[in-house]
Amino acid sequence: MNASEKSLDPENWEELESLGHRMITDLFNQLRHVRNQPVWQSIPAKQKEKWKDSLPDLPGNLCAVYEQLQESLIPYPTGNGHPRFFAWADGAGNPVAMLAALLAAGMNPNVCAGEQSALYLEQQVISWMKEYLCFPAGASGVLVSSGSMANLTALLVARNNYSKVIRQNGLSTLDGQLVLYTSVETHSCIDKAADIMGLGRNAVRRIEVNDKFQIDLRKLESRIKKDRAEGFIPFCIVATVGTVNTGAVDPLRELASLCQQEQLWLHIDGAYGAWAAAEDGPVKQEDISLADSLSFDMHKWIHIPFAVGCTLIKNRLLHRETFEVQADYLVRHERGLFSGPDMIADYGIDMSRGFKSLEIWMTIKTYGISQLRQLIRQNMEQAIYAAALIINEPALELMAPVTLNVVCFRFIADPDKTNAINREILMRLQEDGTASLSYAMLNGSYCLRAMVMNHRTQRTDLDILIKEVLKIGSALVAV
Amino acid sequence: MNASEKSLDPENWEELESLGHRMITDLFNQLRHVRNQPVWQSIPAKQKEKWKDSLPDLPGNLCAVYEQLQESLIPYPTGNGHPRFFAWADGAGNPVAMLAALLAAGMNPNVCAGEQSALYLEQQVISWMKEYLCFPAGASGVLVSSGSMANLTALLVARNNYSKVIRQNGLSTLDGQLVLYTSVETHSCIDKAADIMGLGRNAVRRIEVNDKFQIDLRKLESRIKKDRAEGFIPFCIVATVGTVNTGAVDPLRELASLCQQEQLWLHIDGAYGAWAAAEDGPVKQEDISLADSLSFDMHKWIHIPFAVGCTLIKNRLLHRETFEVQADYLVRHERGLFSGPDMIADYGIDMSRGFKSLEIWMTIKTYGISQLRQLIRQNMEQAIYAAALIINEPALELMAPVTLNVVCFRFIADPDKTNAINREILMRLQEDGTASLSYAMLNGSYCLRAMVMNHRTQRTDLDILIKEVLKIGSALVAV
Ligand SMILES: Cc1ncc(COP(=O)(O)O)c(C=O)c1O
Ligand SMILES: Cc1ncc(COP(=O)(O)O)c(C=O)c1O
Repeated sequence: MNASEKSLDPENWEELESLGHRMITDLFNQLRHVRNQPVWQSIPAKQKEKWKDSLPDLPGNLCAVYEQLQESLIPYPTGNGHPRFFAWADGAGNPVAMLAALLAAGMNPNVCAGEQSALYLEQQVISWMKEYLCFPAGASGVLVSSGSMANLTALLVARNNYSKVIRQNGLSTLDGQLVLYTSVETHSCIDKAADIMGLGRNAVRRIEVNDKFQIDLRKLESRIKKDRAEGFIPFCIVATVGTVNTGAVDPLRELASLCQQEQLWLHIDGAYGAWAAAEDGPVKQEDISLADSLSFDMHKWIHIPFAVGCTLIKNRLLHRETFEVQADYLVRHERGLFSGPDMIADYGIDMSRGFKSLEIWMTIKTYGISQLRQLIRQNMEQAIYAAALIINEPALELMAPVTLNVVCFRFIADPDKTNAINREILMRLQEDGTASLSYAMLNGSYCLRAMVMNHRTQRTDLDILIKEVLKIGSALVAV
Repeated sequence: MNASEKSLDPENWEELESLGHRMITDLFNQLRHVRNQPVWQSIPAKQKEKWKDSLPDLPGNLCAVYEQLQESLIPYPTGNGHPRFFAWADGAGNPVAMLAALLAAGMNPNVCAGEQSALYLEQQVISWMKEYLCFPAGASGVLVSSGSMANLTALLVARNNYSKVIRQNGLSTLDGQLVLYTSVETHSCIDKAADIMGLGRNAVRRIEVNDKFQIDLRKLESRIKKDRAEGFIPFCIVATVGTVNTGAVDPLRELASLCQQEQLWLHIDGAYGAWAAAEDGPVKQEDISLADSLSFDMHKWIHIPFAVGCTLIKNRLLHRETFEVQADYLVRHERGLFSGPDMIADYGIDMSRGFKSLEIWMTIKTYGISQLRQLIRQNMEQAIYAAALIINEPALELMAPVTLNVVCFRFIADPDKTNAINREILMRLQEDGTASLSYAMLNGSYCLRAMVMNHRTQRTDLDILIKEVLKIGSALVAV
């Protein structure tokens, strides 16, 4: 050995290991007391300045580095771990997955190819997802970086299903423009996907919704007819299970039979809503399993740390055909590391891949799916509870039906001030550290939106929320 | 509170916390002794069976879950943490980033939008990357899930640079087919990107290479001319800094001036090679900074746990224009959580995003960039050392020049047996647990390929590698 050779392993292992133990202690302390923290607090300018130092040349003291994080990072989180975080559709994380993330980073496999255990664990996770959502055993699936990516992944398979020559020759050799159908309430990532795929955002036909915020089937059918008459090429319908604004669920059976009739691909975006699938719930698994492809997120309603989405595809061959990689340097061998199962890069965009599946695996294995499902049901019941509080309160107005776990409402005020007052209520709730709501624009009205998707939320948290909304609203109106 | 309300927080916090401490102890133990483990070992069928159980309904015992991982997962890794892993371009991870991953999962922000500390930390990481690679202060950047995604992200900006109407109208409204240029040695993810973008794989013009495996400039120029004459629309050249097979570096200055002359976008794929950029090294930062866009990976040569790539774009406005999201529910507020910096989803495909930036931040802050750079230099010197061993050994043949850290060689045997014998050497080295090599097909020859990219590698490891190759090769020839 050359005496001058170094590595990233520390000279003092004990020091680093003891920092690890300190972090474990601190993190558990934080998790246990998250309820006593403000949901959100503003970041002092002095703290923001600290994130402007230039590239550090020399090593930093380990403990000092950690202490900078304790001072400048940790006190100013998004807030999604807090029981009164009702803002974006963000999961709360969970302590078991937190430990799994440590293990994953310590083991650090590239979960792409090769005869290695992580690939088998990941296959099991995909099988579990198929089981949960009643997809057939022969279906395929892949974990990706986000719900947006999960939707893009599925739409690429749908495009390949329409025509296999696109892969080689591109879109410009087609006879017309491919178009897809979805509602005005669908998440913006579908537009982005169409753009990325070279279809353009105009290829997304945004169909109006009914008063339950579901896609209007009559308008959908007539738009398809019109497009065909004009030479466009319909290839896909995107249904949403759990829209971002109101939690609406599109009529899956009707859409499935329309797709069959029109020879269109049915994709379901169930980013968070797919998790609600249950025999006795508002969304049935067998309806979800009507889809040709389904995407959903792990960092939402089963609280895996950010970020990991999943795409399931009924036709495995078509899935593989869409993403298959051909390269000399990836040819498999009979034995050794280069044997092993199908390369995961053959089923998605990424080549190198992290080990998010371990977090999912440990979460499901430790809590069991019944308990996870029970917590999802608990959130839906809490949403109905909150809706009842709102309905019984003359100063408040429920703005959309509660299908899953989203409650849209507003404080009633002078019509030309209502939007501004509700916006101010939202900001003050955050600034007070009491609760984080989000908002939805519904028919031109600014609505407060409570996304009840946190395993720590209790009904008392919703009592507090409603009480505070009323208090702030009344104070604003009184001015 | 409703007595029946549950959460994912354990009833017994102490039990879970003590498992955390146990994992820290175990992980540090493994890291300290990684050198004494086999690089790879085959997975017994019995162990693989364990990954076939169906979706668990009931909770599992915490320690039993961990023990299953210790028995069935941890002993069968990819091997990239081992000093004699020379296979794929996989980083080895590092213990500081491992702890950062724990913190990131515990804090669990959605690093997408909002006034929250994680966004500022991530901005700092992007600034550091610009500094490292001499990109101007006004440039933009984004962390993505992989090098493949980083390349796709950059090429989408290049497409938008050619024509801003594609975003809305798609490709089919263009007057001709967009084409891009790169060498035959470029990574397969560029074909995949062209396919995803709707250009098709045929839009990737694969230009031959010279004897240093660099793109042949003369052939490149004439192909551009030919394409223009035939009505194709050239829009981009993709150069590689560190090709996957041999570590070749394309001639950046010449390509930059060709791009200027032809009005083409210059993208550099520096997946691992960009990290080698240094004033005194084989790749100069100022040459890399000639690119309009650059992509590179964090899980490669600076050993961040899998997986995170980065794209830098010189023209921030163009970058934002390409990915900007418009949605009612994402409009920013003046105060509270919904104020804060530009949404990161405006710079990439993902909406929800994990906190990989914390791992990068803690790694750079703790080790300092000088030390990280020194380890990269160490690997390049080790590669030259290995090449010298090979050149001095009559039974071995060096198959490509060593530019960065890749050493392609083979054991010399009977011409019609050489490929098979070298393939067998590779498999046996893995099966013995001695070393993991990869391979490259160069001009029809199966070459053994040592990617020297591990911070734990020492020259003695290369001595062992060469000795074992000779031993196995001689035994095979003797049969
Ligand atoms: C219905 C729906 N689709 C897609 C997405 C995008 O998912 P991601 O944020 O994981 O990219 C979301 C995010 O909240 C969503 O609610
Ligand atoms: C030159 C080059 N480009 C792109 C990639 C793909 O990067 P990733 O595996 O992170 O998707 C690699 C992977 O090794 C590479 O070496």
